[in-house]
Amino acid sequence: MLETMLQNVRERAPLVHNITNYVTVNDCANILLACGASPIMADDPDDAEEITAVCAALNLNIGTLNARTIPAMERAGRRANALGHPVLLDPVGAGASSLRTNTAARLLDELTIAAVRGNVSEIRALQLGARATRGVDAALEDRVTEENLPEAIAFAQAFSQRTGAVVAMTGAIDVVADAERAYVIRNGCAMMGRITGAGCMLSAMTAAYLAANPGNFLEACAAAVCAMGVCGEIARDKTEALGAGNATFRTQLIDAVCNLTPEGLQERARYELR
Amino acid sequence: MLETMLQNVRERAPLVHNITNYVTVNDCANILLACGASPIMADDPDDAEEITAVCAALNLNIGTLNARTIPAMERAGRRANALGHPVLLDPVGAGASSLRTNTAARLLDELTIAAVRGNVSEIRALQLGARATRGVDAALEDRVTEENLPEAIAFAQAFSQRTGAVVAMTGAIDVVADAERAYVIRNGCAMMGRITGAGCMLSAMTAAYLAANPGNFLEACAAAVCAMGVCGEIARDKTEALGAGNATFRTQLIDAVCNLTPEGLQERARYELR
Amino acid sequence: MLETMLQNVRERAPLVHNITNYVTVNDCANILLACGASPIMADDPDDAEEITAVCAALNLNIGTLNARTIPAMERAGRRANALGHPVLLDPVGAGASSLRTNTAARLLDELTIAAVRGNVSEIRALQLGARATRGVDAALEDRVTEENLPEAIAFAQAFSQRTGAVVAMTGAIDVVADAERAYVIRNGCAMMGRITGAGCMLSAMTAAYLAANPGNFLEACAAAVCAMGVCGEIARDKTEALGAGNATFRTQLIDAVCNLTPEGLQERARYELR
Repeated sequence: MLETMLQNVRERAPLVHNITNYVTVNDCANILLACGASPIMADDPDDAEEITAVCAALNLNIGTLNARTIPAMERAGRRANALGHPVLLDPVGAGASSLRTNTAARLLDELTIAAVRGNVSEIRALQLGARATRGVDAALEDRVTEENLPEAIAFAQAFSQRTGAVVAMTGAIDVVADAERAYVIRNGCAMMGRITGAGCMLSAMTAAYLAANPGNFLEACAAAVCAMGVCGEIARDKTEALGAGNATFRTQLIDAVCNLTPEGLQERARYELR
Repeated sequence: MLETMLQNVRERAPLVHNITNYVTVNDCANILLACGASPIMADDPDDAEEITAVCAALNLNIGTLNARTIPAMERAGRRANALGHPVLLDPVGAGASSLRTNTAARLLDELTIAAVRGNVSEIRALQLGARATRGVDAALEDRVTEENLPEAIAFAQAFSQRTGAVVAMTGAIDVVADAERAYVIRNGCAMMGRITGAGCMLSAMTAAYLAANPGNFLEACAAAVCAMGVCGEIARDKTEALGAGNATFRTQLIDAVCNLTPEGLQERARYELR
Repeated sequence: MLETMLQNVRERAPLVHNITNYVTVNDCANILLACGASPIMADDPDDAEEITAVCAALNLNIGTLNARTIPAMERAGRRANALGHPVLLDPVGAGASSLRTNTAARLLDELTIAAVRGNVSEIRALQLGARATRGVDAALEDRVTEENLPEAIAFAQAFSQRTGAVVAMTGAIDVVADAERAYVIRNGCAMMGRITGAGCMLSAMTAAYLAANPGNFLEACAAAVCAMGVCGEIARDKTEALGAGNATFRTQLIDAVCNLTPEGLQERARYELR
């Protein structure tokens, strides 16, 4: 299953439109190229709508959102919806400010969102209106553990049922769910939290997997999450072998995505379907 | 010839003002430092005009253009023109949206542009008003090949004749032309298309070569294009030797520009003057 | 002394709000993570104020300032002041344009600034209203040397006395001063001027040191400046051993910050208290 998802990205080479924060935008562009897709960025309202039309998917990431990019997200989102392109929402920092929480909630409400990718705090903020995010990192009380896994799955599925979006709730353990099924994924490593943008890069890459695998969004999301986790492990091993730090890890992570084969992904992925 | 162009960049260390997209801006800054120049970025209309005045060249790149940066480009461009600083235009995504096509066309019309650096699709969009760009990559039907090379050269020269700008039309084969002469350059490698920003970095670096080589814009552009291609090959060889991916390639590319000697450039450059 | 400062950053893991330029923002985020802190960026006026409230320090960097980010800096700054969070100001390019000089001066005037980190030209522009900056690099006539060191210290102390801020005036020799005491620091290397963002990264990291060491701002700044200089030397040695260039140096620099131990910092730091 995972193999096909990645093969489709490589073969279809989807062009992904990203309206995303300027902190990690370069990494998002390079990881899209690494996985076999192509990036384009446009965030002026007049430009975004037209650019979306020449793409195959839209990645909306609200980190560093502003008064100009919010309408661009809305216009590009509506156009993508009209064209049947999958739209992914990354609610960076939802729960940390009202502008972020409200914007993410409104986008989710007004648009047809194919998938939401966020950490537990952010998904909680969208579901509960909670104000529990510690910056862009999951608050400690919001971690998915083996103990609270059943509750986390039920929570993700309730979110998916309400919104119609596949949800990729990522952390030490990842839960990728729609209203009926849930993948539990145990790849990845702590080092991914020591670089900026692991989440943003995953969201961009997930948008490419959605574009390349229409009609199969749950598996597409699960495959993207597995791929990122597997590549995180490969990058960690190389970084540790070099005695290097987080900047080397970032380079190794994108390199690993670039060199990942469908077979390698299938072999190293640790997931179960519940 | 190429040696002198690079030596002049190193000796004169021009300060280059960039109004450029936020996707690849960090790479543009680092490659300017790598080649021996210095970068400064300012894109608020009130700031851009004054900052341009303390620089030696202006690099206008319309990727992620917006309602604030377009007037900044216009004001900075007029000031640079008044001061006799060379202005380079990189029409990123011209042809992919009307805002981009029209903005690039207007800048080309209103300002004295020393050089335009783009792929075939983008230059075509400016020349023909065509709408043929696939995102920021050259559309397949728009590649320069050995077969259509004479037509490509004639097209570039017609563009140069009409606009007065040297044109650097880059791809698998690069054509750098003014109205009378054309350099055909066969350096570079496919890996340059697997990172974001190879084109943006080349544009920024070309602006430095223009600043350091006044009165010799055609050769300055040809030297910058050769330098980027040669460094792409060096970076590809190192990346392949390491079994690494596109993120390592990016690092190696900037490193190669940093370590390029005038002799190394002359030795490895593969160009002909037609 | 230095050891404790770094240990506190690692233990308290402060969340730092950055309103900073888009050129080096990714490096700022990664160096904050490398040193043990966490970054968040928000520059819309409506967002910035609320985001600052969940953070422990605020880093204001005026590179690529614009009409939207200036009010965001003011509102976030006032909120940070009200909450007692340390605010750091990096007056990038002050002296190079009136918008930059005036904005930096106004922020310094209206807000309680815990520390200012800049090169000599920028600090001079703030103190004297001088117009002597060559882009974002210190003008040649503005370097601190062994010969003019006493004057440089007196100048830094006068600035600190007037503004109430600790000043970290960095260059080949760094001076970190308050109205009464001054640290002279002789770490670092020329290669730090061959990448973009060494100054911006230091400012972001210094904000983390301020947050983790309340009531000890002079020593916190001195420790951050020493840490950056020591890591620059480590990165230079590794880069030279590899025969690499400035892009590798950037990676090595952040890696060195990631791997720096309190003991390593204490051992390699070369500073004197005057």
